[in-house]
Amino acid sequence: MLWPMPLHHDGPLARLRRGHEELVLGLLRKHGPLSRAELGRHSGLSRTTLYDIVGALVDSGAVVATAPAAGERRRGRPVETLTLHPEAGQAIGIDFARRAVHVAAVNVAHEVMGSAGEAHEPDLPWQERVDVAERLVGSLAGGTLRLGSLGAIGVGVVGPVQDAAEEQDGTEPRRDLPLLLRKRFGVPVLVDNNTRLAALAEATWGAAAGDQDVLYLRLSHGVGGGLVVGGSLHRGAHGLSGEFGHITVEPDGRRCSCGGRGCLETVASVGAVLEAHDRADDLPTLLADPAAATLLDGVGAKVGTVLAAVCNAIGPGVVVIGGELAEAGEALFGGVARALAADLMPISRNRVDLRPAALGEAAGALGAIALVLHESPLLARYPASPDSEEHT
Amino acid sequence: MLWPMPLHHDGPLARLRRGHEELVLGLLRKHGPLSRAELGRHSGLSRTTLYDIVGALVDSGAVVATAPAAGERRRGRPVETLTLHPEAGQAIGIDFARRAVHVAAVNVAHEVMGSAGEAHEPDLPWQERVDVAERLVGSLAGGTLRLGSLGAIGVGVVGPVQDAAEEQDGTEPRRDLPLLLRKRFGVPVLVDNNTRLAALAEATWGAAAGDQDVLYLRLSHGVGGGLVVGGSLHRGAHGLSGEFGHITVEPDGRRCSCGGRGCLETVASVGAVLEAHDRADDLPTLLADPAAATLLDGVGAKVGTVLAAVCNAIGPGVVVIGGELAEAGEALFGGVARALAADLMPISRNRVDLRPAALGEAAGALGAIALVLHESPLLARYPASPDSEEHT
Repeated sequence: MLWPMPLHHDGPLARLRRGHEELVLGLLRKHGPLSRAELGRHSGLSRTTLYDIVGALVDSGAVVATAPAAGERRRGRPVETLTLHPEAGQAIGIDFARRAVHVAAVNVAHEVMGSAGEAHEPDLPWQERVDVAERLVGSLAGGTLRLGSLGAIGVGVVGPVQDAAEEQDGTEPRRDLPLLLRKRFGVPVLVDNNTRLAALAEATWGAAAGDQDVLYLRLSHGVGGGLVVGGSLHRGAHGLSGEFGHITVEPDGRRCSCGGRGCLETVASVGAVLEAHDRADDLPTLLADPAAATLLDGVGAKVGTVLAAVCNAIGPGVVVIGGELAEAGEALFGGVARALAADLMPISRNRVDLRPAALGEAAGALGAIALVLHESPLLARYPASPDSEEHT
Repeated sequence: MLWPMPLHHDGPLARLRRGHEELVLGLLRKHGPLSRAELGRHSGLSRTTLYDIVGALVDSGAVVATAPAAGERRRGRPVETLTLHPEAGQAIGIDFARRAVHVAAVNVAHEVMGSAGEAHEPDLPWQERVDVAERLVGSLAGGTLRLGSLGAIGVGVVGPVQDAAEEQDGTEPRRDLPLLLRKRFGVPVLVDNNTRLAALAEATWGAAAGDQDVLYLRLSHGVGGGLVVGGSLHRGAHGLSGEFGHITVEPDGRRCSCGGRGCLETVASVGAVLEAHDRADDLPTLLADPAAATLLDGVGAKVGTVLAAVCNAIGPGVVVIGGELAEAGEALFGGVARALAADLMPISRNRVDLRPAALGEAAGALGAIALVLHESPLLARYPASPDSEEHT
């Protein structure tokens, strides 16, 4: 324990009070800095109860109250925000991408403490990828990382995660990854698709920070994405949500790696764009070629058509586009915006905000942290207390 | 108060305990019958606390424990389910459709007590529609309805509801509807789009009862739908979720009433199908014509294409199709299933269950009730207690 905490281990009053403390700690862990008014809205606790609980948590040191910087003050009295104590714990995210490992660390006050990445061959065995991850985590924050205070590690991986795992072939022992990581780091591991995690990261720290309903599309070697619905990562019934890359855009188009035909991925992946251009061997060369503008505009239009269909279905407030191809900027976004305007319901046209992604390569690792902050059942009971087992 | 309830009105212990009681009552109100194990999962309360709270609520009469009927017992010991006391309250739903008013009543144990409907001219003034609704509500359940025990009334209306209200023209005073109903029935009114509410109803009592991630498509004079995400009605950032009818299926197709072009509604609405057939004046005649099979199959294929795109994006476990056109049965569903199989990601093909809607015309009114059971802040504190104001 980092601070003296007035816990009452006996009796129903202690248990009930503990429940409210956990609610408040959980909300601060999920949302980061909140005002007392925001905490009240999220928790549904009465003002009396909330002030009582928050007061005790601040006294104990678990929660810190911070006045806003002068520049951030709105009209009237400055509003104090509450966060978990920044030194009370850190969360680690690891993104095992196709050809690289990325890691990031964030403290429980939602401050990003650092990130790092390292490229590797695509066929590097999992054991060695975990070695890379461990080394990168060790390098973060100059060794100030206290693994002992981690409640869980979030991990991003390529491809579908949940039910789909049963269909993996046995040569790629990714299903052992959580166990491998748990042995190495000594804490539970939460795993999800890294593109979906990037969506959560953009909605937590990135281009759509603070937005509750966000569609994230990633145009990279694959095309995928993720949805944040009501502030939480959306998974769908079988963990196959966000597969925008496999929505059909050309019914008679090319065969896709998924087995389908004419999927968005056959048109808007980095490989598809390079092939269609036929004069550049890599994306930077293509993006530097003024003659590629028409191609990129057309790709953007296909992307916009798919986005409009999904937006009409689920009505996000913000659409974020990331991945290497998003670096094309206006050449691509122009076509996207035009197709969105054409295909969105007229009533929705001014209600969808199109933005480039903000977090770059660290997005997957940061999203893995957001997953831990949102969902880890262990961190939910943070800070640990001797009677916490009873609540399981 | 219908039962003696041992309330402690003073002190933090009473307030804290009250919070847990409200949590349990709210979960039973939202989900209907639950086992103690399910209540534990939903509430996150410790076993000790939960049994204590449930015991007190059963003793007070607020909650009723029911052993399952012999036929419903699974292997091993029969599992007792808990519900709110059926006589403790009723919820009313009213669906103001284009040409009819439908009403339904459900008690807080989730038992449907009755439904009724009455057609009217499409231009009937709102005041008179409310008269019809009041008369129908009065006729329900042979006058046993206790309006005094209603916490709120749920209402379904045609068209977009939330932000969109500001764009209505002034000739149709629908924006006064909640006030009108509140005056008439004396309780708060929750309003949402009636097609979206039908989605919630199908996921609560209908074709997808108990499923958490449901896509509902309604093929009627308009084409629309709704999404249930994680068991709750999905609204999107601006309340424009579920507009499947305005997803483009024919880029060079006909102009749609929404202002767009080639929307699904221009192909798969009752009017569009009648026009394409050109030999029948009404839908029953068309559906009885064997020569319409090719047309219906083609319409089904367009529907399936749109559904596949949305399914790839959000991964529902169940797709429910309702509305008059769904009465075409296999003639339509065959085309839908074929297009779904072609355009769904192969990995998802066996994970989406296609079903016809089960609730018919009462769906909107039943969904309005589900909305009240899920979301009414007043019912959330049910049963009312003298200190409930304090929790606001």
